[in-house]
Amino acid sequence: MRLSEAGELRLLRELERRGLVSGQDAEGALLDQQRVATLDLLAEGIHFRVDWTSFRDLGYKAAAVNLSDLAALGAEPEALLVGLGAPHDARLADVIYLYEGLNEPGVAILGGDTTRTSNWSISVTALGRSDRVPGRAGARPGDVLVVSGPLGASAAGRYALEQGLEGFEDLVEAHRRPPLRIDEGKALARLAQAMVDISDGIGSDAGRIAERSGCKIVLDVGAIPRAPRIEDVADLRFWAMGEDYELLAALAPEDVEASGFPVVGRVEEGSGVEPALPGWDSFALERSG
Amino acid sequence: MRLSEAGELRLLRELERRGLVSGQDAEGALLDQQRVATLDLLAEGIHFRVDWTSFRDLGYKAAAVNLSDLAALGAEPEALLVGLGAPHDARLADVIYLYEGLNEPGVAILGGDTTRTSNWSISVTALGRSDRVPGRAGARPGDVLVVSGPLGASAAGRYALEQGLEGFEDLVEAHRRPPLRIDEGKALARLAQAMVDISDGIGSDAGRIAERSGCKIVLDVGAIPRAPRIEDVADLRFWAMGEDYELLAALAPEDVEASGFPVVGRVEEGSGVEPALPGWDSFALERSG
Repeated sequence: MRLSEAGELRLLRELERRGLVSGQDAEGALLDQQRVATLDLLAEGIHFRVDWTSFRDLGYKAAAVNLSDLAALGAEPEALLVGLGAPHDARLADVIYLYEGLNEPGVAILGGDTTRTSNWSISVTALGRSDRVPGRAGARPGDVLVVSGPLGASAAGRYALEQGLEGFEDLVEAHRRPPLRIDEGKALARLAQAMVDISDGIGSDAGRIAERSGCKIVLDVGAIPRAPRIEDVADLRFWAMGEDYELLAALAPEDVEASGFPVVGRVEEGSGVEPALPGWDSFALERSG
Repeated sequence: MRLSEAGELRLLRELERRGLVSGQDAEGALLDQQRVATLDLLAEGIHFRVDWTSFRDLGYKAAAVNLSDLAALGAEPEALLVGLGAPHDARLADVIYLYEGLNEPGVAILGGDTTRTSNWSISVTALGRSDRVPGRAGARPGDVLVVSGPLGASAAGRYALEQGLEGFEDLVEAHRRPPLRIDEGKALARLAQAMVDISDGIGSDAGRIAERSGCKIVLDVGAIPRAPRIEDVADLRFWAMGEDYELLAALAPEDVEASGFPVVGRVEEGSGVEPALPGWDSFALERSG
């Protein structure tokens, strides 16, 4: 079987079943009570194109993607390690811009590696501390799902870039510089039964909670907050496509009001996510509307 | 300026000078008194070819390269995070072999990421604990350099593979499965003023100590222990080419005998390394004899 048929989720399941990886119950590794670590890869042509982004924006995004995983762990960031693969004819100045962007969120880069590769790739490890990691496995029937912010701006901005549409600079900016939800993550982690970041689409990421918690998630699609103006870009479900890096948390009903975040669904007995929504899997799928 | 002109060392200097990375005084990040983290990237076509290695060996090597950095920090490994970039037509079975190899040294993989890329790439982060990190900056004139084992087997094995030479299975095996020096690293870390692993060649890696410690290193080339039979492969200085993942440590003279490791040089006032030896820089150089 090829990875293109198996997809990323099946791949991870197969690895986990054989005891070859663990830690799939959360966005990252739990080293002990408080210490957490996450790793994300960004690859040219898959996650970014160097003609659609500045190197500084790219660096910011590479850091932000990882810091979003830390946010989902309720963690305060401590340090980054960066592995850079760059073509041999890359400009030194561009690499410096990239590292300026990586530093922009304010988390020190304490180590890493650089090597020559045919295409650009950026691997970031983020290390942090969390007083409480909700993980993905604790949601229970009766819980309520909340989201930390509006969805769709990043995917709509990406589409505007791809199609060469003008007048959507705010959305393009949201694609290039997704928000950091560290404080929201720490606040939600105190309450949440389960939490993920919405990088692959709210359907896919809700599916991670459903699978790990052994329950069904019913999304209230009409209640999902959508970023302004995304419907002006095209008639596509941008809000379902991910890359917003907002947080999705399952809370006990009595904690919802105190959280202050909008309700977008509920947890029930069963399995899977309703309704089915398109998601993002770099092996199995091209992005689809 | 292009990275091919600047080289990896210049790149790192430029990034450090601007405050964009730190931690270049050791093989990895020092998070606090005891916690350390390292990150290494292996890229297809640069560090490995999938037609010259089994996926299981490749996985082992990707883990070993990082565990070697931990060894140079005097650390006991705690966990790995793995970022895998794989072509979309990769076989699921090959990825499972790869992770079997990654698990072989016995350090749990607690998290990571997988994504589609045009060429295979493996980014490994290793986390560990060290009671004492020698770093690279503490060597002083009068110190003595020792090495943890014989050099050259890996480079000679690689050459035998490249040239299709037969009868050098032991050397090819050393290339595919470099030794782990965790125990040696912990023992040497108790004594060493400075320590590195020899991944880029003894000349280049001695140069890291010389630069960071602000001194000169004089290697006693005749005293460098060489792996058996490397001179049967070809008349090349395989022992200078790195990838052995042995440790090079600067010790105070009175600690040498207790260490039990052979002396290969000394530290003097000045700068640089004598004699000049070829090294490995993925941006600037092809491997040279």
